[in-house]
Amino acid sequence: MTVTTPSGFRAAGVAAGIKSDDRLDLALVVNDGPDHHAAGVFTRNKVKAAPVLWSEQVLGTRALRAVVLNSGGANACTGPEGFQVAHATAEKAAEVLGCGAIEVAVCSTGLIGKQLPRDTVLAGVEKAAGALDSTSAAALAAASAIMTTDTVAKQAAHTDPAGWSVGGLTKGAGMIAPSMATMLSVVTTDAVVDPADLDPALRAAVRVSFDRLDVDGSMSTNDTVLLLASGASGVRAGAEELTAALTTVCRDLARQMQADAEGVTKRILVRVTGARTEDEAVTVARTVARDSLVKTALFGSDGNWGRVAAAVGYSDAHVDPGSLDITINDVLLCKGGVAAGGRTDADLSGEDIVVEIALGLADGEAEILTTDLSHAYVEENSAYPS
Amino acid sequence: MTVTTPSGFRAAGVAAGIKSDDRLDLALVVNDGPDHHAAGVFTRNKVKAAPVLWSEQVLGTRALRAVVLNSGGANACTGPEGFQVAHATAEKAAEVLGCGAIEVAVCSTGLIGKQLPRDTVLAGVEKAAGALDSTSAAALAAASAIMTTDTVAKQAAHTDPAGWSVGGLTKGAGMIAPSMATMLSVVTTDAVVDPADLDPALRAAVRVSFDRLDVDGSMSTNDTVLLLASGASGVRAGAEELTAALTTVCRDLARQMQADAEGVTKRILVRVTGARTEDEAVTVARTVARDSLVKTALFGSDGNWGRVAAAVGYSDAHVDPGSLDITINDVLLCKGGVAAGGRTDADLSGEDIVVEIALGLADGEAEILTTDLSHAYVEENSAYPS
Repeated sequence: MTVTTPSGFRAAGVAAGIKSDDRLDLALVVNDGPDHHAAGVFTRNKVKAAPVLWSEQVLGTRALRAVVLNSGGANACTGPEGFQVAHATAEKAAEVLGCGAIEVAVCSTGLIGKQLPRDTVLAGVEKAAGALDSTSAAALAAASAIMTTDTVAKQAAHTDPAGWSVGGLTKGAGMIAPSMATMLSVVTTDAVVDPADLDPALRAAVRVSFDRLDVDGSMSTNDTVLLLASGASGVRAGAEELTAALTTVCRDLARQMQADAEGVTKRILVRVTGARTEDEAVTVARTVARDSLVKTALFGSDGNWGRVAAAVGYSDAHVDPGSLDITINDVLLCKGGVAAGGRTDADLSGEDIVVEIALGLADGEAEILTTDLSHAYVEENSAYPS
Repeated sequence: MTVTTPSGFRAAGVAAGIKSDDRLDLALVVNDGPDHHAAGVFTRNKVKAAPVLWSEQVLGTRALRAVVLNSGGANACTGPEGFQVAHATAEKAAEVLGCGAIEVAVCSTGLIGKQLPRDTVLAGVEKAAGALDSTSAAALAAASAIMTTDTVAKQAAHTDPAGWSVGGLTKGAGMIAPSMATMLSVVTTDAVVDPADLDPALRAAVRVSFDRLDVDGSMSTNDTVLLLASGASGVRAGAEELTAALTTVCRDLARQMQADAEGVTKRILVRVTGARTEDEAVTVARTVARDSLVKTALFGSDGNWGRVAAAVGYSDAHVDPGSLDITINDVLLCKGGVAAGGRTDADLSGEDIVVEIALGLADGEAEILTTDLSHAYVEENSAYPS
């Protein structure tokens, strides 16, 4: 159920001292092969963190031996000095693992604008290399070492009956938004794959999993999803099976991120059907999922469908108010753009809320996962220096 | 300092009984001429309230005798029945004022999806007609009658030395977002104007005032700004002077809306300079102004410029991280995309915060007014049924 579920992988998580207390803050994931194929999806934010710039570069080779990940600092807006720290981190990992720096990706998360303590990080890499193991305990330590405002470690795996598997770990609770891979995530597989299949398979999986999660509309400077393939199972996986398995694992991880989002009290699924295209369905669902008035209403367990209708109406997609139906937790509240039921008819007292929006135009459909906007969200983000 | 400051206008605000208590809930603004030129700007939301559909239609004549405005119900998502109530409201006003229904605009605000009580509204129109006056007290009653979550009535005026003036009233504290006139506002002038100047002058003023205010990114179904010109001063105003005076009044009203926004504890001005174009400056400023992480940080008096940098980076505008400077309350915190000062160097303890973003690319610049994301915002919008 984690990155070491597939054969050929070891992981470690250690307290390097980047964070001020004794918490785990540095992780290492190593692919022992025989294959070292890799793919990556990165933030589309134009302000990219140093480790993103580094890792995008090394992914040019489509191969990776290892990934170093740290919390306690995003190494973003840190200039040439920050890039040198990311580079030195990869060099240190290469040295202790006996490979080239070009085979090591680096990921960071935490406060933007703070320089990472170079020597502390490098010592941490050495410490992590000494702790590498293929046990689930080692993987849990790795998943724990990248947590920031996360309250639980997030891992998932999927095993194909043919004898290969996909595993993953992730972190992310805030600054989570769309249109790219969100947060830090490492996904592994021991399938024997055609290297050319990796990148499209990862992108296809990310498009319908992490990219369909939108906590606060804020795209991070550090988002990275890396896929490492060891081939250690000896079993070949085709592009289609691989994509399906990756999608399963990435969706599992995305749901874990939703459930642990900053200040979450409601897990909200916005499902749009009947749009002209899938893209327009995503646009409508995302607009509703980001609307502060919808999110605060749902925090208050209030089936205020009028706010949903308003958000649908200002989305960039084609919408016909006369064919707009809105259903919340199975109760039809708006039919053809007009009130159909009492707003209090839907029971929203539980933790899960499903908002269904039927546009009645064509067959385009999509779902976005989001959360409510609660006092806890405001509290956490007005106090926590992320 | 209000809609009756220009000559030729009368106003009234009464308690019609649309709201369940005795609060003022219906306003009437009448243009006694001699001119009856008018222009209007309406929400671009595709889900438009019935009064918006009605008023857009009557504005086709570019002339208005009167405007009826009510709080206590938005008359949105109310279908043909809702449209008939808006129509009947205009007919009743026409009857009591001795004009045609086609000369009467209607504006509503309040909960979406609720039918307005037709007879109550019509009786209210008659009551308001009996209370019409050109005093500031009458105008204050009108401004008060359209308040929902507003805590203060909002009025403004500007007098040109040549002997004509512009006055306005507005409401709006939530569901306030860009790209169209926001909220309900009636602006009057007694200048003698070329009717063809009115619409472009109003659009120009709205573009840099109401359209530059963004409380929560949520575009309402009912936003309407109407301009009525009586010509009663006998003094001619050219397009340029008229636009300038309208801009002054609309900016004043927009600032009053910002200061009274739902849950506001900080008045935030986001100023972007050095963009490739004004449009791109608006895009960057709006993206930062809408970012929940920026808004919660500023609620916490935290000069977390890294969140500003991240928002700049995910905006749709062209951005070069290497030339990005961020200054908060006069303290340069980020220079060339890298930390320049301590985050705590800026004193954000007061109610006003200025976030300056210099992109260093060209001459495009723009400002957006916004507010923080506070506990009070969450409280108000999870409890208040708007």
